[in-house]
Amino acid sequence: MSDHPTIDDVRMAMQRIEPFVHRTPVMRCRAIDDRVGCEVHLKCENLQKVGAFKARGAMNAVLSLDDETVARGVVTHSSGNHAQALAWAARERGVPAHIVMPTNAPEVKRRAVEGYGGIIHACRPTLESRLETCASIAEKTGGTVIPPYDDDRVIAGQGTLALELIAQVPDLQAVVVPVGGGGMISGVATVMKGMDAGITVIGAEPSLADDACRSKQTGSIQPHLGDPTATIADGLRTTLGERTFPIIRDLVDEIVTVQEDHIRAALRLVLERSKLVIEPSAAVGIAVAMQPAFRERGLERIGVVLCGGNLDLEALPDLLTGN
Amino acid sequence: MSDHPTIDDVRMAMQRIEPFVHRTPVMRCRAIDDRVGCEVHLKCENLQKVGAFKARGAMNAVLSLDDETVARGVVTHSSGNHAQALAWAARERGVPAHIVMPTNAPEVKRRAVEGYGGIIHACRPTLESRLETCASIAEKTGGTVIPPYDDDRVIAGQGTLALELIAQVPDLQAVVVPVGGGGMISGVATVMKGMDAGITVIGAEPSLADDACRSKQTGSIQPHLGDPTATIADGLRTTLGERTFPIIRDLVDEIVTVQEDHIRAALRLVLERSKLVIEPSAAVGIAVAMQPAFRERGLERIGVVLCGGNLDLEALPDLLTGN
Repeated sequence: MSDHPTIDDVRMAMQRIEPFVHRTPVMRCRAIDDRVGCEVHLKCENLQKVGAFKARGAMNAVLSLDDETVARGVVTHSSGNHAQALAWAARERGVPAHIVMPTNAPEVKRRAVEGYGGIIHACRPTLESRLETCASIAEKTGGTVIPPYDDDRVIAGQGTLALELIAQVPDLQAVVVPVGGGGMISGVATVMKGMDAGITVIGAEPSLADDACRSKQTGSIQPHLGDPTATIADGLRTTLGERTFPIIRDLVDEIVTVQEDHIRAALRLVLERSKLVIEPSAAVGIAVAMQPAFRERGLERIGVVLCGGNLDLEALPDLLTGN
Repeated sequence: MSDHPTIDDVRMAMQRIEPFVHRTPVMRCRAIDDRVGCEVHLKCENLQKVGAFKARGAMNAVLSLDDETVARGVVTHSSGNHAQALAWAARERGVPAHIVMPTNAPEVKRRAVEGYGGIIHACRPTLESRLETCASIAEKTGGTVIPPYDDDRVIAGQGTLALELIAQVPDLQAVVVPVGGGGMISGVATVMKGMDAGITVIGAEPSLADDACRSKQTGSIQPHLGDPTATIADGLRTTLGERTFPIIRDLVDEIVTVQEDHIRAALRLVLERSKLVIEPSAAVGIAVAMQPAFRERGLERIGVVLCGGNLDLEALPDLLTGN
């Protein structure tokens, strides 16, 4: 346990990335307060660079590399926000980002990465092909692989959002954080427990991709039981990693799951009432806070991380109705 | 001209409504700055109470009435944001709001008004029936009719957003304001010209509902030439009124029209990149600022009012594609 990243690692990450990322605002919405039954402070990582908290971890990782190493570029496999974040971070530092994407990745994702100057390498749509292609490009270019979440530099970078949040809302009692691979909640828990301010850290996960909940319960990393692509929360379909699991096991207070209907309702509530564009994964935290059981905790002031805003506008009606 | 509302009327409105409305934030978005070619400060009235600037004018009108008068309630005909705003303002003051709505108004609009406690009265879907029903309810109840824009109390209330904006961004060179009935731009121009700070006031209007542009050019109130419901900017389908036209004639510097394709593109840009939910009418101001001719003005710092955020999520894909 002593080799977890520490709050000092997060503070160092903050110093590194501060000139590049937004200190995102914290917003309130009466309709959400009413539905949850307490003050809900929305940490707006949907307003972050590249539209997601992933900018923090990617930038910290890129800035952690020495000049000679980083000049050879960075490499990752992702078709999600980490791909855009790494492309953006690399461009900010003036080095190439090689992004391995399966041939069946949506065109809009490819264009987004290219828009940030990323170099896309196609692979077959299997994890094996992704890893192989990624390793082969790293070997060929001498570039450094930056994983999307299972990496201490990435974890420390994501934690910076929690440093901001407790400065913005000093008397929070709990924070609700969506969990996919666990990079964000690991960073957040590192800060909250490192500050020892008595802030409960609650993970939020779709019932259809509840590996983190079961991993915490059983004490070991669990795979998905069903098909994780069944959840609309596409950012939360990954499983925990070797670096994130122990932090979640030791520092996260609990992980709560929610069903798709409630994720849809939360997505609609945020779009309609707070007027913020969020992606389905960001609705998962709100959905957890809206559960009747959550109200019974009697909390007065919580934070919820709106982790990203990269919503597929064309798919929105289907996302809301479940068709 | 001497009977226009003055900046002092707007200052008085501000004192009245301040405890009830949000001082909405001003936001920036790199992608919008890049597309417009200068600093674009977004005045976020989409984050206002009831999701639109209309809360300001309605609240000022309601608070302008003496206790005895207001106790008899307020009356209006509208199926748009003014209906919700008046229902909300009346409820805040504890008095009834009678809202006349045509039988063909969307169910979602009716529910929104009822959600704010408004009492809905159905009428036939003609202007004649709307006015008749409205007058008959006012007579029966002794309630006060609060028009959606052609009213000095309403105009002064809308102007309060401009008082905030110049305090938030002191060195603006121009402000772009969508124009429907002209209540908002009349209030904004009253402030900008009343301050004499050299801020250009530019109206933004859909080409398919360009009555304000032609009214200003010809010097008299012009009707629509075609079918105004053809524009997606449903908040801008009304024509100028007897109170708003003279202010626009005298104080607004110019009115610029934009085509539907550009409104759609601006709507997509704001949703995708600024992560703010806006309604199509609010995209019209951004669309004007994105025109190549606008860049030729060489402005460095402008404000654009995002007038509302009441977007029909189910209709969004059609709004974006024009189907």
